Amino acid sequence: MVKRNYILQTIRKVYEKYGFQPLETPSLENLSVLTGKYGEEGDKLLFKILNSGDYLSATTSADYQAGYKDMLPKIAKKGLRYDLTVPFARYVTMNKHELTFPFRRYQIQPVWRADRPQKGRYQEFYQCDADVIGTTSLVCEAEIVAMLQEVFQSLGIGYVLKINNRKILTGFAETIGAVGMEGALFVAIDKLDKIGVEKVTEELLEKGFAASAIDQLRPFLESATSGGLEAVTTFLQGNPTGQQGLSELKQVLELAGHMGLALENVQFDLTLARGLSYYTGAIFEVKAKDVQIGSISGGGRYDNLTGVFGLPNMSGVGISFGVDRLYDVMEELQLFPEDAFVATQVMFAQFDQASLHYCLPVLQELRQKGVRAEVYPEAEKMKKQLSYANDKKIPLVVLAGEAEMQAVSFTLKDMASGQQALLTRSALVESILAQTT
Amino acid sequence: MVKRNYILQTIRKVYEKYGFQPLETPSLENLSVLTGKYGEEGDKLLFKILNSGDYLSATTSADYQAGYKDMLPKIAKKGLRYDLTVPFARYVTMNKHELTFPFRRYQIQPVWRADRPQKGRYQEFYQCDADVIGTTSLVCEAEIVAMLQEVFQSLGIGYVLKINNRKILTGFAETIGAVGMEGALFVAIDKLDKIGVEKVTEELLEKGFAASAIDQLRPFLESATSGGLEAVTTFLQGNPTGQQGLSELKQVLELAGHMGLALENVQFDLTLARGLSYYTGAIFEVKAKDVQIGSISGGGRYDNLTGVFGLPNMSGVGISFGVDRLYDVMEELQLFPEDAFVATQVMFAQFDQASLHYCLPVLQELRQKGVRAEVYPEAEKMKKQLSYANDKKIPLVVLAGEAEMQAVSFTLKDMASGQQALLTRSALVESILAQTT
Repeated sequence: MVKRNYILQTIRKVYEKYGFQPLETPSLENLSVLTGKYGEEGDKLLFKILNSGDYLSATTSADYQAGYKDMLPKIAKKGLRYDLTVPFARYVTMNKHELTFPFRRYQIQPVWRADRPQKGRYQEFYQCDADVIGTTSLVCEAEIVAMLQEVFQSLGIGYVLKINNRKILTGFAETIGAVGMEGALFVAIDKLDKIGVEKVTEELLEKGFAASAIDQLRPFLESATSGGLEAVTTFLQGNPTGQQGLSELKQVLELAGHMGLALENVQFDLTLARGLSYYTGAIFEVKAKDVQIGSISGGGRYDNLTGVFGLPNMSGVGISFGVDRLYDVMEELQLFPEDAFVATQVMFAQFDQASLHYCLPVLQELRQKGVRAEVYPEAEKMKKQLSYANDKKIPLVVLAGEAEMQAVSFTLKDMASGQQALLTRSALVESILAQTT
Repeated sequence: MVKRNYILQTIRKVYEKYGFQPLETPSLENLSVLTGKYGEEGDKLLFKILNSGDYLSATTSADYQAGYKDMLPKIAKKGLRYDLTVPFARYVTMNKHELTFPFRRYQIQPVWRADRPQKGRYQEFYQCDADVIGTTSLVCEAEIVAMLQEVFQSLGIGYVLKINNRKILTGFAETIGAVGMEGALFVAIDKLDKIGVEKVTEELLEKGFAASAIDQLRPFLESATSGGLEAVTTFLQGNPTGQQGLSELKQVLELAGHMGLALENVQFDLTLARGLSYYTGAIFEVKAKDVQIGSISGGGRYDNLTGVFGLPNMSGVGISFGVDRLYDVMEELQLFPEDAFVATQVMFAQFDQASLHYCLPVLQELRQKGVRAEVYPEAEKMKKQLSYANDKKIPLVVLAGEAEMQAVSFTLKDMASGQQALLTRSALVESILAQTT
């Protein structure tokens, strides 16, 4: 948990440097807000909260006989949030008159999904989102590229940022004569990684794409990045939507260049689609270079996130980090720094009451100077006390028995080397401060 | 929320300096863990989570007819945590073989109660606990006195720490001939503040205390602190439990003295009982000096917190802060420092594309130097951009139009005074750094 906080704190600091303010929304949302926003599967994974008191009071035997689906709205009004995006959209809509737009917020809170718990899948996990809403400016996209660079550099994670634009994909759908079918195209393309080109083309055929249409698409699916921007630009020449997407993409990269960002980690990837999500412009996805673990960050621009709550025409763009995967990557690459932890830095052993009284003022002085310090609470056998310090990885132990008290001094023991030094109070404090701060 | 984080951060830092490690437990606990731990009223206030999928599958019409109480265990297995103490006890019991005892943890997480929402009462609110478990050492109590002092001094809140010991109260019950009735005594005494001595004695009579017993108690109830420790010591002379409580209390104060703590804020208060809770030794309660708002912190020692989960004889002592009340106190006394906030420190206005490109490298330089900075995302009318900066309380705005670009410089505007200065890039960065860090 200390390690997870290190990740969250790193992300938080970057968000704040880019002008994002922290926001928290309640864990419980009305089910009417949540339901229908995450697809059928998502609805099933919502945790629903039973109404307080006699939750059956609004039901009849007929409701019970009708089964759990029909009975649900009569016994449960609230649910646990499933992500941070929908509550954010609800919040912006409800507070539209109080907020200053463009509105930037970041949000670091747990979300809940009633998945069967398994390795790498939790029922409760943190999301870590930043969004700016109320502007179509592409500077915001460039700032996302910047924030991603800063977060991953701070954490020490090598990464590849894949970038695409939904309008380019829509342009493809239009150009191959599949107008209005871009949704199915996004979903199918999104599976390229997992199922390969053959299965994806099969799926497209099933969904009603013409064989000739798929033939036009094929070279792009087969070598996602090789043709690159030029080939795509040529292909979409006659299509205004696609041209618009390409222009946006180029502007984002240009702005990122003006910001002095290193763009060697940034790749245009035509096969990046991000499935069913609500994106309408830029889309982002980050993978770790040295660990196979799926995407560790993702986001994009949406033009109508708040429309479903009655606030239309609010364009925004956001990014989210997968904290649990970041954690796994950092563990695997051993990237957590030693000082990311808040373990106790020095422990005072306890010989007896007199020794305790002798140590307490120094203990307090160290704490006042910012050192994380504790005294072993009981005068147990020294072996037990030292093994406690060892188990807790406390690097320094102060010993003050009768000999030390008579010499008006303290023994400072370095637990790693086993070395001991007899020091006066001021020398002790100085030595500890030098080793801990 | 930024302000609440300031409070949490202050408490977190103090906890860590005293050797406490952060712990988080899942929001969802089994209802079997939660039910029966908070009294009948508490059970009603638990948020219960409907089982996933067909939650009715384990029920019959007869269950439905039997009513909501009987049906509950068949449709809901989990609930949201109601406090941090019970999940902590569950956690310690489950992980007893992996933990190093004495085990110190702090925990800052939300808890949920199905109260009707009203001013000062939320369905979701933060608790902020620290406990050390696995030792009976009174040093831990003295350290609680120290942590309270440090937290309230850091926050700038004047406070009174009331301290008592359950064994003293038990000694009273035994001395007045009401052996085994201390539970009723705790609950009644706890209401002294609210209902006064007359009503409390009435309640004691109702609960079966003899009139003569109450007469012995009366002088102590009437002037809780005036008689002080001496009068209580005399009264409890023949009672071992009471003597033990008094001895513990005096040792705690003595240890606190050795730690150099200011004890003028610490008051022995015989009428402090903390009602139904599980405390068995020291009890603490803190009130703000300058605001009438009830207790802002409380805690105490318990000898059997984990017993209910099958791990007996684990003594511990803990403290908890009421974050929402602390917030109210700090607001009322205007104690939040300006720099507790993470608002944007400097905004770059945007004149046009050229101006944007001219500003972006400086914007990034400032961020790299730790300044919270943003660029207005669109080239809107200057009035609108400045009013945005104003609304968001951004103190500094950088303007770089055609004139500035020709002079290879930037205008820095102080939003409070309205003063402007024309500066070179390096002078601009220097000036902003001087004003923000």
